[in-house]
Amino acid sequence: MPDYIEFFIELLGPEHCFNDEQSLEYYSHDHTENLRFKPSLVVKPKNAEEISQIVKFCNEKNIPITTRSGGTGLMGGALPINGGIVLSVERLNKIIDIDTQNFQATVEAGVINFQLQQALEPYGLFYGPDPSSWGSSYIGGNIATNAGGLRAVKYGVTAAAVLNLEVVLPNGEIIWTGANTLKNSTGYNLTQLFVGSEGTLGIITKAVLKILTKPKTDITLLIPFHHLEDSAKAVTEVFKSGLIPCSLELMERNALEQTLLHLEENSISLQKNVQAHLLINFDGNSHEELLPLMEKTIDVIKHYPTEEIYFADNEIDKNRLWELRRKVSEIVKLNGYTIEEDTVVPRAKLPDLIKFAHQLAEKNNMKVVCYGHAGDGNLHMRFNHPEYKNSYQNPNINAMLKELFEYIHMLGGTISGEHGIGLLQKPFLPIVFSKANLLIQKNIKKAIDPKNIMNPGKLIPD
Amino acid sequence: MPDYIEFFIELLGPEHCFNDEQSLEYYSHDHTENLRFKPSLVVKPKNAEEISQIVKFCNEKNIPITTRSGGTGLMGGALPINGGIVLSVERLNKIIDIDTQNFQATVEAGVINFQLQQALEPYGLFYGPDPSSWGSSYIGGNIATNAGGLRAVKYGVTAAAVLNLEVVLPNGEIIWTGANTLKNSTGYNLTQLFVGSEGTLGIITKAVLKILTKPKTDITLLIPFHHLEDSAKAVTEVFKSGLIPCSLELMERNALEQTLLHLEENSISLQKNVQAHLLINFDGNSHEELLPLMEKTIDVIKHYPTEEIYFADNEIDKNRLWELRRKVSEIVKLNGYTIEEDTVVPRAKLPDLIKFAHQLAEKNNMKVVCYGHAGDGNLHMRFNHPEYKNSYQNPNINAMLKELFEYIHMLGGTISGEHGIGLLQKPFLPIVFSKANLLIQKNIKKAIDPKNIMNPGKLIPD
Repeated sequence: MPDYIEFFIELLGPEHCFNDEQSLEYYSHDHTENLRFKPSLVVKPKNAEEISQIVKFCNEKNIPITTRSGGTGLMGGALPINGGIVLSVERLNKIIDIDTQNFQATVEAGVINFQLQQALEPYGLFYGPDPSSWGSSYIGGNIATNAGGLRAVKYGVTAAAVLNLEVVLPNGEIIWTGANTLKNSTGYNLTQLFVGSEGTLGIITKAVLKILTKPKTDITLLIPFHHLEDSAKAVTEVFKSGLIPCSLELMERNALEQTLLHLEENSISLQKNVQAHLLINFDGNSHEELLPLMEKTIDVIKHYPTEEIYFADNEIDKNRLWELRRKVSEIVKLNGYTIEEDTVVPRAKLPDLIKFAHQLAEKNNMKVVCYGHAGDGNLHMRFNHPEYKNSYQNPNINAMLKELFEYIHMLGGTISGEHGIGLLQKPFLPIVFSKANLLIQKNIKKAIDPKNIMNPGKLIPD
Repeated sequence: MPDYIEFFIELLGPEHCFNDEQSLEYYSHDHTENLRFKPSLVVKPKNAEEISQIVKFCNEKNIPITTRSGGTGLMGGALPINGGIVLSVERLNKIIDIDTQNFQATVEAGVINFQLQQALEPYGLFYGPDPSSWGSSYIGGNIATNAGGLRAVKYGVTAAAVLNLEVVLPNGEIIWTGANTLKNSTGYNLTQLFVGSEGTLGIITKAVLKILTKPKTDITLLIPFHHLEDSAKAVTEVFKSGLIPCSLELMERNALEQTLLHLEENSISLQKNVQAHLLINFDGNSHEELLPLMEKTIDVIKHYPTEEIYFADNEIDKNRLWELRRKVSEIVKLNGYTIEEDTVVPRAKLPDLIKFAHQLAEKNNMKVVCYGHAGDGNLHMRFNHPEYKNSYQNPNINAMLKELFEYIHMLGGTISGEHGIGLLQKPFLPIVFSKANLLIQKNIKKAIDPKNIMNPGKLIPD
């Protein structure tokens, strides 16, 4: 039991401070590989004012603070690797305002993404970012990692939806970063500096988000390609034709196969000669609007050998397909593919990337499965090795990843499209950033958090 | 003649260094009110390597560097208020690559916005941001101010189009800020930190920009409202109906009247009972696609008293209308309205803002004319006073602006939507940012430019 526990109990009440074994174990891990790091204490404040008090105290006593949102992170951003306190924002769970005149929602950091979507539904509105984890990930964590999602192709990643943030700084001051406006050229863009900063610069407590009118209808196409490389090439062709899908996902055979085996019911029969699927969604305000988009898609695809295209236009079929896609990562992990990468390249480089990933895995006696947001050039890869369950501090795996990331950098890509850097990708930043660039990042961290109390050991290489 | 001129002549050649009176006079002003500040020397390097040498020298000798792009700024960002050198990027004028597979363009900082648009045209592509100044403003300056434009409603401001930047840092190091990808959660978002930093953190030399498929057709509606307030209210109604215009501009009567008088030919007859116009553009791939959008717009507007709506669907008529809109600022300035503000509020607050601006002007014995990007809540206001031509260091005008900005802040808005802070808006930042916020901005500046050689005296309050 840390000697500073009395302070937190007095501030928050004993019912919001936890140092029992079960709690420490629960907050020692998230969705990152099989890693565990126990904190000394878990605290659950209810608002920015309490967080400000906590931060001031920790700043004075040099206690590391690891902020935790929904705990769905994959890169170790929320793991308390240096002990100290885990600060969970789960009690900051209020949707403060839905402004249907200005198309803005103000929410606390602990609101679950899907809860916000549901709250907007009755107004005919929606919030763009929809990470696969939307059923449990929090808006605060989405912002801290600049989470993407399935419809980022059309509606952008989290960065595009964040207008203004309330943040508790490492000195305990509470600030708003910007203004509640669609445009803003007023000072340095602190809002976007905090987006994706993974709890290393401060604690996000509230956000003003841009919301949108929800299109009245949508349609989903599942296209089974005979050749994996063709599916990746077709992605570029879709955009060159002028189509703007709402989502454009790629799942290679192995991803779909594993996922189908775990689902109780499904309507997909996987043909033997199919190597990959594209899952495409178009949204719009009428069936008449969507019809020509479907026709155009078919026109683009017809040059490639495929099985019959499956169309889903009713809610049950569509939900089944998208739930399937959302579950891939989780199920593939259960099957032993514990190491997930979040590669991103210029879209037309996808065929090269997929080819390289398979060659690399084979060379390293591993299996790999690729899936993800092909429309954004953002491909997830999960690796499976008979002996290794983690990449963390594994020199063999890390040597392989280094080779992968060097290739990606050569393609104009980078090492994370939407998951962040956290603990696991930190050693690889020098592959994609020059020394001079990293020095700027370090100096920014030092300028804002000089005592390095905010999520120490994450994002910035040592 | 400064004593360090020999260094620059040796580095760049005498044909790229200027200290004659005419050059110093030319580079002493841009489009900011009637302000003039002469530099000691004007230099025109040709690439990042030369700029790196210049910056290293200036860093050592403590020589202020004011970077200049197209010289169309309105807030004094490019004025060399502390002397030193003006570094013009006009020779960095190459479009390096148009990547039609990945929808990216790589350009040097001195490329004129409209030249890029023209270069993309043959490929059926376009670059979203289209500030009114696009005929002469440079991409580098657009990025440094996070410029907006007429189609920002649909396609976003400059920030949304910038994927990666080459920057010369204050220590002379050349870095790339990010990656050439649509998504990126890799480290702090240095790219967006440099967007809108107005030359205070480094010199942008190259940019990788997101480009888009150009819609095949578009249509413009000019709607003459009897009441100014109705026009502002209708803006909100358009978005609530689910419509997504490409542009949605407001011009109050006075703005249009003054502009029409200066144009040689026009097809608009301004009816006596009209107080404001909305100018709306929809783009799409077919006339059939646009027709229902027009009908819906008419349906939304019909609740308000208007004169007959004017439709422009041929190139000549459309260009005439949009050229008219683009010329408003320039012509209104010629007519003595020298003080331009760049207010931005949550969209539905526009009626309140317009009303307040007129009351405030009247109270201060001034005239005001409002126009701008109503679809984004971004309203330009030009003020005219019989005695004062500048707001700079004018206590009476600044007292009025303070009142305006305090009101805007109260509405959830801020003091610049797309022009930046530069010299003129700097004193007003404490209205919209707390002390703790401004301290973070100052510390970031200090962390990146510790000797304060990059555009000193701009953006950050003293």
